Amino acid sequence: MNEKINEFRDYRKRMNEKILEKDNLVIKRIFNLDTNTYKEGALSLKTKELIGLTTSLVLRCDDCVKYHLEQCADLKISTEEIMEAMSVSNLVGGTIVIPHLRRAVEYWEILHE
Amino acid sequence: MNEKINEFRDYRKRMNEKILEKDNLVIKRIFNLDTNTYKEGALSLKTKELIGLTTSLVLRCDDCVKYHLEQCADLKISTEEIMEAMSVSNLVGGTIVIPHLRRAVEYWEILHE
Amino acid sequence: MNEKINEFRDYRKRMNEKILEKDNLVIKRIFNLDTNTYKEGALSLKTKELIGLTTSLVLRCDDCVKYHLEQCADLKISTEEIMEAMSVSNLVGGTIVIPHLRRAVEYWEILHE
Amino acid sequence: MNEKINEFRDYRKRMNEKILEKDNLVIKRIFNLDTNTYKEGALSLKTKELIGLTTSLVLRCDDCVKYHLEQCADLKISTEEIMEAMSVSNLVGGTIVIPHLRRAVEYWEILHE
Amino acid sequence: MNEKINEFRDYRKRMNEKILEKDNLVIKRIFNLDTNTYKEGALSLKTKELIGLTTSLVLRCDDCVKYHLEQCADLKISTEEIMEAMSVSNLVGGTIVIPHLRRAVEYWEILHE
Amino acid sequence: MNEKINEFRDYRKRMNEKILEKDNLVIKRIFNLDTNTYKEGALSLKTKELIGLTTSLVLRCDDCVKYHLEQCADLKISTEEIMEAMSVSNLVGGTIVIPHLRRAVEYWEILHE
Repeated sequence: MNEKINEFRDYRKRMNEKILEKDNLVIKRIFNLDTNTYKEGALSLKTKELIGLTTSLVLRCDDCVKYHLEQCADLKISTEEIMEAMSVSNLVGGTIVIPHLRRAVEYWEILHE
Repeated sequence: MNEKINEFRDYRKRMNEKILEKDNLVIKRIFNLDTNTYKEGALSLKTKELIGLTTSLVLRCDDCVKYHLEQCADLKISTEEIMEAMSVSNLVGGTIVIPHLRRAVEYWEILHE
Repeated sequence: MNEKINEFRDYRKRMNEKILEKDNLVIKRIFNLDTNTYKEGALSLKTKELIGLTTSLVLRCDDCVKYHLEQCADLKISTEEIMEAMSVSNLVGGTIVIPHLRRAVEYWEILHE
Repeated sequence: MNEKINEFRDYRKRMNEKILEKDNLVIKRIFNLDTNTYKEGALSLKTKELIGLTTSLVLRCDDCVKYHLEQCADLKISTEEIMEAMSVSNLVGGTIVIPHLRRAVEYWEILHE
Repeated sequence: MNEKINEFRDYRKRMNEKILEKDNLVIKRIFNLDTNTYKEGALSLKTKELIGLTTSLVLRCDDCVKYHLEQCADLKISTEEIMEAMSVSNLVGGTIVIPHLRRAVEYWEILHE
Repeated sequence: MNEKINEFRDYRKRMNEKILEKDNLVIKRIFNLDTNTYKEGALSLKTKELIGLTTSLVLRCDDCVKYHLEQCADLKISTEEIMEAMSVSNLVGGTIVIPHLRRAVEYWEILHE
């Protein structure tokens, strides 16, 4: 596995544990809800992950984008579909989104190496 | 047709015409691109409209949300699917999204009267 | 009770009910969490409401600001304290916050009539 | 003078007075700084007002946009220049800016009636 | 003192000096106001720093969060209080805040090593 | 040429190529429009670049700020003008903009070494 992926996952895992150790009930429930939201339901898991990806992109959160790209890769969503989803974010969010799009495409490629 | 829908559509139509009359090339191309983005492609039109809706919701733009709700209603997307899509926006964007969710649900009901 | 307060509360109450009727689990849990966060804990309820107010103000959500102003009024937080809290939001968030500050001060006065 | 302009100006003036009456030093200094920033300097007042306008537009603050449109009208900035400035905001900020562009163009026309 | 803290402080100090050397009056006054806002007043300094922290967190500015965490550590605010304050930001701002929460908790721990 | 400038330009160039290779029509048209917006017109190129810079700064996108600083340096815009433009962004966007201002001033100095 690529080093950048490992680094990203390790940091997220390690810090999530640190956060949960603090035992704040509200934060623990938000984390728990986060896990339970991205599930098959009236909408397919694929659609929900694409929504997670595109909302993260317009809000310009690189780490959130990376996380959802990982989930999308696991679901075998195609590059063409990912680009089409991200093109909507780019249109809605404007050129300010482009630097985040660069890092998203870079990470998407790393995930497929 | 409900008065609120007509009012919203009339204002949008009238002001879009005013804007395009100003003949600014960049704005005209953005408007044109906006029309051409929400089309069947690698992703279904339905998925793209849901992305348009959910990104608009996390960015908290009531008018954009209303517009995409109209498109979603035309595509016969169910209330359950809309609520599930908007629940992701609510989770990602936080409780600050809730006032916009209220207005979204209100408009969704008006569209189905 | 002032008409503007009633109108605001009625709409919020009515639409919250509509939203909860849709029976989306994620949204219901976010609403539930929202209710449970603003409670006496390591921080006083007063401090938490001031945090709710000031974060809502920098995110420029008028309805959220109004809601927290109501809670602050119930807690007998003084006008001087409210202005001091909102001055931090104004500094952090910049002059773009000022139109929301105007509406906040207007609502604060209505709450004390 | 058009009624909408008067209404906007009266509310702003009245609420600014209310805010300043509260005598919060930080807020008073921000208001004072706001007045002193838009002045001829290394950049022309016209350029600074265009920056005030376009930054307000990407941050999607209708009242701030209206205020700067008033200043731009006073400075006899042409409609073509205003549209060109706002086209940059539209590109940078994306289609989410469009509803605010509609209200900006509407107000610009009212200012020239 | 930990290297990460020193690095952060040195860069901030060095660049603040560079900025102030440019001798722009507006920026100098904003910096001055920033220093003068976080002072004991109608609200305690502790409450104001918590407001600085939580507004910075919902606006997702890592450097601003770090700065206010430093001030909070100096004021001996407890970890439980910090987590409770940040939990409000997490609820209000949504899961998009979580990556910034990770970096905040990491820095908080570094400050207490 | 300074290493930091090269690194920034190389990454942008390389990733832009990767993105365009994906051949998504909407994204290609946004990139094309981005190139075509910053041109002499009713407003001077200098004014448009200053608008690009200041809107990027209030939206707090470091890479966009860097890009426009490069263009401003090419246009021989003076440090005093740049600081005055950025002071408006700082006022409008608040102290949350300051960490981005630090990085902007750092990059501006690197561009002039």
